Amino acid sequence: MSKYKNALCRPKGFKCAALACGLKKNKGLDLALIYSEVPAAACGMFTRNRFAASPVKICQEHLKRGQAQAIVVNSGNANCYTGKMGLRVARETAQLAAKLLGLKAHSVLVASTGIIGRQLDFTKIKKALPVLAGSLDKNNGAKAARAIMTTDTKPKELAAKINISGKPVTIGAIAKGAGMIAPDMATMLCFITTDVLIAYSGLKAALKEAVDTSFNLLSIDGCMSTNDSVIILANGLAGNRPMSLNDDNFMKFKTALKKICLGLAKMIVSDAEGASKFMTIKVSGARNNAEAKKAGLAVANSNLFKAAVYGENRNLGRIIAAIGASGAKAKEDIAIACGSLKKKDVTVKVDLKIGSGEAAVYTSDLTPEYIRINAGYN
Amino acid sequence: MSKYKNALCRPKGFKCAALACGLKKNKGLDLALIYSEVPAAACGMFTRNRFAASPVKICQEHLKRGQAQAIVVNSGNANCYTGKMGLRVARETAQLAAKLLGLKAHSVLVASTGIIGRQLDFTKIKKALPVLAGSLDKNNGAKAARAIMTTDTKPKELAAKINISGKPVTIGAIAKGAGMIAPDMATMLCFITTDVLIAYSGLKAALKEAVDTSFNLLSIDGCMSTNDSVIILANGLAGNRPMSLNDDNFMKFKTALKKICLGLAKMIVSDAEGASKFMTIKVSGARNNAEAKKAGLAVANSNLFKAAVYGENRNLGRIIAAIGASGAKAKEDIAIACGSLKKKDVTVKVDLKIGSGEAAVYTSDLTPEYIRINAGYN
Repeated sequence: MSKYKNALCRPKGFKCAALACGLKKNKGLDLALIYSEVPAAACGMFTRNRFAASPVKICQEHLKRGQAQAIVVNSGNANCYTGKMGLRVARETAQLAAKLLGLKAHSVLVASTGIIGRQLDFTKIKKALPVLAGSLDKNNGAKAARAIMTTDTKPKELAAKINISGKPVTIGAIAKGAGMIAPDMATMLCFITTDVLIAYSGLKAALKEAVDTSFNLLSIDGCMSTNDSVIILANGLAGNRPMSLNDDNFMKFKTALKKICLGLAKMIVSDAEGASKFMTIKVSGARNNAEAKKAGLAVANSNLFKAAVYGENRNLGRIIAAIGASGAKAKEDIAIACGSLKKKDVTVKVDLKIGSGEAAVYTSDLTPEYIRINAGYN
Repeated sequence: MSKYKNALCRPKGFKCAALACGLKKNKGLDLALIYSEVPAAACGMFTRNRFAASPVKICQEHLKRGQAQAIVVNSGNANCYTGKMGLRVARETAQLAAKLLGLKAHSVLVASTGIIGRQLDFTKIKKALPVLAGSLDKNNGAKAARAIMTTDTKPKELAAKINISGKPVTIGAIAKGAGMIAPDMATMLCFITTDVLIAYSGLKAALKEAVDTSFNLLSIDGCMSTNDSVIILANGLAGNRPMSLNDDNFMKFKTALKKICLGLAKMIVSDAEGASKFMTIKVSGARNNAEAKKAGLAVANSNLFKAAVYGENRNLGRIIAAIGASGAKAKEDIAIACGSLKKKDVTVKVDLKIGSGEAAVYTSDLTPEYIRINAGYN
């Protein structure tokens, strides 16, 4: 696997477009279109926040058929807590894009990221969509990666090429967010394109496992966004043989997808604005993997421990307190090992001494810069 | 109710002592003794952290009889994650104090606050206890309040006088911690003395209600300490008529106790080092009171919202995101009202529009100073 520019357009049959339609104050790119020339198997995983944003609701509705062909993404406004008006804007965005692309509305997905609680200006999107649809191109993948950024300091793209039944299969993906930046602004979004031929059920199973072992293992500050979305489109143009859920080819695809998702998740943590450390919390000896994750996330969400790491201050008592409060079962004499805090990459190993469950969780430190950024943003 | 110096010694039959035995680096007062001249009904509420500190375990053991006569408290060391050795130190502290005071060991309770994971030096305590027991005095209540402080900037004392069946009844209390200071160091401790005559069952019910409506409504940073303890001793010397759980006198006592606990809880939030704001989150319209509290605590624990409040930045979308992630049931068009962020006291009102459950939760803002303090402490 290597970092690719233009990742989204590397799989066969995908094109992108991006432009600035005026949603961002700084006039940066803020509207992107991801398009497959042929219908693609499609599924997504979304925030569990009760106040899921309007585009999340539209995606969930449209994805019921397990098929899609385009995604419209805007940055600068989350279209959340915007009531019926917001829902209409999301729906009409999909409808208009569908019309311009000659598709059914349910084949178009939508995603938004930005400020919560402000109406998304549909007139800007309406004006921009024809231009966007008219500028779809094989070389616009990197532009799309930039258009979904908010306070990210760099675009996040990854791609992988594998071989399935003698055919080259490509996966491309972009992500944005969130790090220590401003998660309610930044939202975690990830879009994945692939030319693999795969049934909906297999795609869904692979995506779930990939997300559970990547984005769901990173905690920035315990704040769940209203807009988090991971969406995959698989258009089948690679022409590989169909795969069943337990054959080697499926494993190969799933492994590549997991690597891409984990790679992007780590890029998100690395880009965490305000953060000075990249932390990996490895928990072993838990009753099961779920409890290991629970314990790891408790450490990752401990303001006290994260402030200590920022200060390069070896306060392991704060790990004890966090794990003790997590609800995960543990022996009183749990073992904690922590590498040098002077380094940028810090790994903490915790052995709960109960069973064989394990998990790794990723996070960053808590810094005055994080507060400065989040105190100032609006 | 008014703030009293020497609060703990205002009820009849209570004496205190405090001294510096060398546990604190700064040579400040670090060992206190609270003593009732006669046996007292006693109960406590403690941390639910799996790694409860040794003194917490000893208290839970000794309080099984519902009776106690003395409390030994040290600051500067939490005696937590200290294994069998730590447990022995806590037990021997109680035993030695009991011997010096002519009591059974189970009549003595112990509490600790300070750094986690370092052995508590029993030789210092052993040397100090005879001096401590020999200096018990009616005028040492304020000194005890100072001896339990860690990074608190001021001692926290409250007392109340009420009339029960024609007899004056006094309640005195001290607390320490935690605010935004350094909760794993600071731990929330509270000790309450009263001369009311009350059965154990009544005392326990009143304490539970008082703690649930005060200390359990404040969240500093979501980090549960390993040492949190609230202990009450009621020695009956006021000579009031016995009370039953549903008579007016019991209500009167419970109301006074609740006021004291809430008063101390607010003093803790006010003293939060690093904090620049005192925030009250009032939630109404919840399915029930428990869900109102859950929603309020989710806001109180949102780093993003607390950083915004520090910046006097009206970012109500972060309240939406926090409540949406809390699990509390709410209508999509929940109503949020927030007073001026320029003031030191900020009240946020949230109406979930579902039912009639309500709760108020107390917290402070998240500041660069909080991180500075917690990055540096060890």
